[in-house]
Amino acid sequence: MSVPVCVLGLGLIGGSLMRAARAAGRSVYGYNRSGGPVAAAQADGYDVSSDLGAVLSRAQAEGALLVVAVPMPAVNTVLQAIATTARDCPLTDVVSVKGPVADLVRDHGLDGRYVGGHPMAGTAESGWAAGFAELFRGATWVVSADEGRDPVVWAEVARLALDCGAAVVPAESQEHDDAAARISHLPHLFAETLALSGVRGGNLTLALAAGSFRDGTRVAGTSPALVDAMCEANAAALLRVLDEALETLAAARTALAAGSTSELTESGFAAHQKYLERGGRPSITGIVPGDHEWLARLRDAGRRGEALLTLPREVS
Amino acid sequence: MSVPVCVLGLGLIGGSLMRAARAAGRSVYGYNRSGGPVAAAQADGYDVSSDLGAVLSRAQAEGALLVVAVPMPAVNTVLQAIATTARDCPLTDVVSVKGPVADLVRDHGLDGRYVGGHPMAGTAESGWAAGFAELFRGATWVVSADEGRDPVVWAEVARLALDCGAAVVPAESQEHDDAAARISHLPHLFAETLALSGVRGGNLTLALAAGSFRDGTRVAGTSPALVDAMCEANAAALLRVLDEALETLAAARTALAAGSTSELTESGFAAHQKYLERGGRPSITGIVPGDHEWLARLRDAGRRGEALLTLPREVS
Repeated sequence: MSVPVCVLGLGLIGGSLMRAARAAGRSVYGYNRSGGPVAAAQADGYDVSSDLGAVLSRAQAEGALLVVAVPMPAVNTVLQAIATTARDCPLTDVVSVKGPVADLVRDHGLDGRYVGGHPMAGTAESGWAAGFAELFRGATWVVSADEGRDPVVWAEVARLALDCGAAVVPAESQEHDDAAARISHLPHLFAETLALSGVRGGNLTLALAAGSFRDGTRVAGTSPALVDAMCEANAAALLRVLDEALETLAAARTALAAGSTSELTESGFAAHQKYLERGGRPSITGIVPGDHEWLARLRDAGRRGEALLTLPREVS
Repeated sequence: MSVPVCVLGLGLIGGSLMRAARAAGRSVYGYNRSGGPVAAAQADGYDVSSDLGAVLSRAQAEGALLVVAVPMPAVNTVLQAIATTARDCPLTDVVSVKGPVADLVRDHGLDGRYVGGHPMAGTAESGWAAGFAELFRGATWVVSADEGRDPVVWAEVARLALDCGAAVVPAESQEHDDAAARISHLPHLFAETLALSGVRGGNLTLALAAGSFRDGTRVAGTSPALVDAMCEANAAALLRVLDEALETLAAARTALAAGSTSELTESGFAAHQKYLERGGRPSITGIVPGDHEWLARLRDAGRRGEALLTLPREVS
């Protein structure tokens, strides 16, 4: 019998998680601070409340898996309440940055029961109404494999991700944040910069824009507040990755001024081919949470791009 | 009765142009230096040859519209042959950069009969076999509106673009090249840089890549030689646009280090909205080539994002 799931925050991700967990047969209930989403979720037949203390008391009594699904700026407040009322519950989160959340969790003394998570799924929409149970189907769900994590909690968090239809990729928090900067946050900054460059050219330029501009700027259509929240929470990793990209562009600038762009175009083309050929997601098998060096072995598997598609029988 | 069309270079663009012009009822013949495409085009029933001198002599005798459709590095050689054998023909080109071609044309003393062009269309493929008559249908075809152009030649070039199904956007060569740097060449350099950034993160990073990385890197799949040819030919404009973008990113870096990305995300989002809302392409009407200030009026219309969909009756 799986433990109940208690979702804290009923936006797109939390709301979809609630639907997906219930569809998988899990007992699930939740909390949202503002009443609108609570009323909407209740109308859809979900057991939710805006009374955080009551929800956390129940979770503590039932040993529920807590899922922090609020935006980064609200995480600290929610952790404070958990530390007061539900400190024995297994704890995870679905925030898009992992290092800073892990730091806050440690500050609140909740480290021993915490394993972070990040489902790599989303849409342009937000809020309870935008959620749906299938959001995570086939998606990647990063589960933190930082040293010292509890194997029972780790397996609970992985089980939730698998129940939602996702594939579990184990990663250290820092590695996750570096990867997120490379594949999401930097692409957003580049898209914004390209959009600005196009508009600075005036209406003639926009009239000539075709596929390369459309695709290169697409994610500039994301709400600025959402992009700010992602980038600012991951500032340390993003600054490193941005500096590296600025170096690449500065070298290309020097080479272009000398008459050639081939160093960048050839290495960039080769990199893109490598991305296209990254192939399927090999399955992680035979690593049982709690076994000798299980976390190090999970991290190594994640670094090879492998994913867990089922839990080993020993823990299921 | 329209003049014959003589296409010099039978790659994707030249080969598609030949098919489109014939489909529109135009008399068309052509040249390619290497024999493979010549044999392929002949097998498809087209009147083509690898004897440049003979093709140009015929064009000179018939007053054909010459279309230079060779890659930028080969333009000078073809112009030299035109200057020798067919200097009275109206002359255009379909090269992706306009200022450098116009400079070469002037060097060869062919300025008086030249009006540059650039059909903003293409595919990932290249060569005669990849061409098709519908490539230009609905596309934008920039026709140079530099001061001093001949109205009869201008109308001939615009007519060819319209016959191929494109909409004609008039633009000064420098403005075209600046726009191309913004909407195509800079996006290519950014895509290459993003692809490199992703691969530097290793297999874990590539395993986590989703939509924003896929779209942001898509054009890094373009052949490096093709990107080099575009960027290097347009180096002057691209350097200016790249420097502007580097300034934008450097400012974002400073702001991020201080804790906020909102200046970039808000202006970038607004720019992207402006691009999305650029609306239809208003039609240019009532400007007859040769009338008072016709070129200045065409340039102004192009700067407003307007396009010519038919030639005024006075010149048709």
